[in-house]
Amino acid sequence: MPKNFMLTIEYDGTCYHGWQRQPNGPTIQEALEKALETMMRQKITLIGSGRTDAGVHALGQTANFACHTNMAPGQIHRGLNSLLPDDIVIRSCLEVTDQFHSRYDAIKKTYRYCILNDPLPSAVGRQYAWWIRSPLDMIAMQQAAQHLLGAHDFRAFEGAGSPRSHTIRRVLDAQWKHQPPNRMAFEVTADGFLRYMVRNIVGTLVMVGLHKITSEQFRVILESRDRARAAATAPARGLFLVGVSYE
Amino acid sequence: MPKNFMLTIEYDGTCYHGWQRQPNGPTIQEALEKALETMMRQKITLIGSGRTDAGVHALGQTANFACHTNMAPGQIHRGLNSLLPDDIVIRSCLEVTDQFHSRYDAIKKTYRYCILNDPLPSAVGRQYAWWIRSPLDMIAMQQAAQHLLGAHDFRAFEGAGSPRSHTIRRVLDAQWKHQPPNRMAFEVTADGFLRYMVRNIVGTLVMVGLHKITSEQFRVILESRDRARAAATAPARGLFLVGVSYE
Repeated sequence: MPKNFMLTIEYDGTCYHGWQRQPNGPTIQEALEKALETMMRQKITLIGSGRTDAGVHALGQTANFACHTNMAPGQIHRGLNSLLPDDIVIRSCLEVTDQFHSRYDAIKKTYRYCILNDPLPSAVGRQYAWWIRSPLDMIAMQQAAQHLLGAHDFRAFEGAGSPRSHTIRRVLDAQWKHQPPNRMAFEVTADGFLRYMVRNIVGTLVMVGLHKITSEQFRVILESRDRARAAATAPARGLFLVGVSYE
Repeated sequence: MPKNFMLTIEYDGTCYHGWQRQPNGPTIQEALEKALETMMRQKITLIGSGRTDAGVHALGQTANFACHTNMAPGQIHRGLNSLLPDDIVIRSCLEVTDQFHSRYDAIKKTYRYCILNDPLPSAVGRQYAWWIRSPLDMIAMQQAAQHLLGAHDFRAFEGAGSPRSHTIRRVLDAQWKHQPPNRMAFEVTADGFLRYMVRNIVGTLVMVGLHKITSEQFRVILESRDRARAAATAPARGLFLVGVSYE
């Protein structure tokens, strides 16, 4: 019987074309499968909890793979970290039951979106935040974000050209936090996310923060289920997949 | 009469071969002079407060240049930021007296060195800290660092192959600070620094933190003025030039 292992993975997405293996550029999945195959000397298919888009980072992405091996999880953990490039780090490796599936078994995920709100951009750490020059009204953004709570059809915030049949998701928490002196972060937890959903929500909440739309208009956009009414997608570099929860 | 302008500059040194213009790779000085010459349509020589080595970052490097122009400092500031790559940001531009010289007039400088002290490395922000796996005794490092205060001959911490005739410098402040949960930063202010001095001091203080040498042995190394007795140079990526002070 093959064993089933679960990985928790941190990565800096700056140099990758997202999570999912694809022909046109390096991806996180490809780098991990390559390291696993070097170590295990067998073909490995890594199942991620979900895709992250090009340039998006993760502090706690999860994935699992089945493999015939006598190696202990701690050995796999250390071996992978010695083979991986330094922008991908395995945070943990656990042996799990053979039923465990990192995507189907996920019950909720948390994302964080980071903004630098300052008259000047920053050189140090520019890969990890969206720079917004004009002052943002965080209280208005926090008020608007409360409309997200609960189950909604989030079609208005889905990426164009990626329609899913089922677009209802349940948002469990949505909070803006000020990080003095000049940063703010939006943390959102839901039972699942549509493609570009967090970045489209943040792009539209920033319109509220700039007083270009009201909190009430944000609610109307959400309820319209019309992608054309939401604002532009926030840049990938501010987004972090913080963690994935299981039963 | 040409005008004299002072710049305060932030940069991410990861992709540069240090501050000073050189034939073998991109440097901060070269990128700035190129942007200035594009804007001013004349040859510009930028005088930095001092060199930073390959891979070292700055939050507040200073430099000055003389130039015939009718542009106001605010216009120069905005113009440069629009021409520079996003890993170099001008924080301020001031017109100064024609006597002002960013190197000769500097009275003190502050550097910060950042360490990630954790069993696991980090992917996000790895460009900005030295990862040390084993626990560091910060109290011991802080105690040893107090031997640096005052005027000393710092030859023991000077980079090999870069002897200066005058190797006495006065350290005004030297503090380790804990940044929970797993980071620590060393901040040191002096009237001047020898080449590699901060990184050699940090490399040797880390030996104290790992209990490989005592605080007293650190003092003996400092007083020996013998480079061969100090530890290996700490990596460039943890080092930031925080600021330069003038009268």
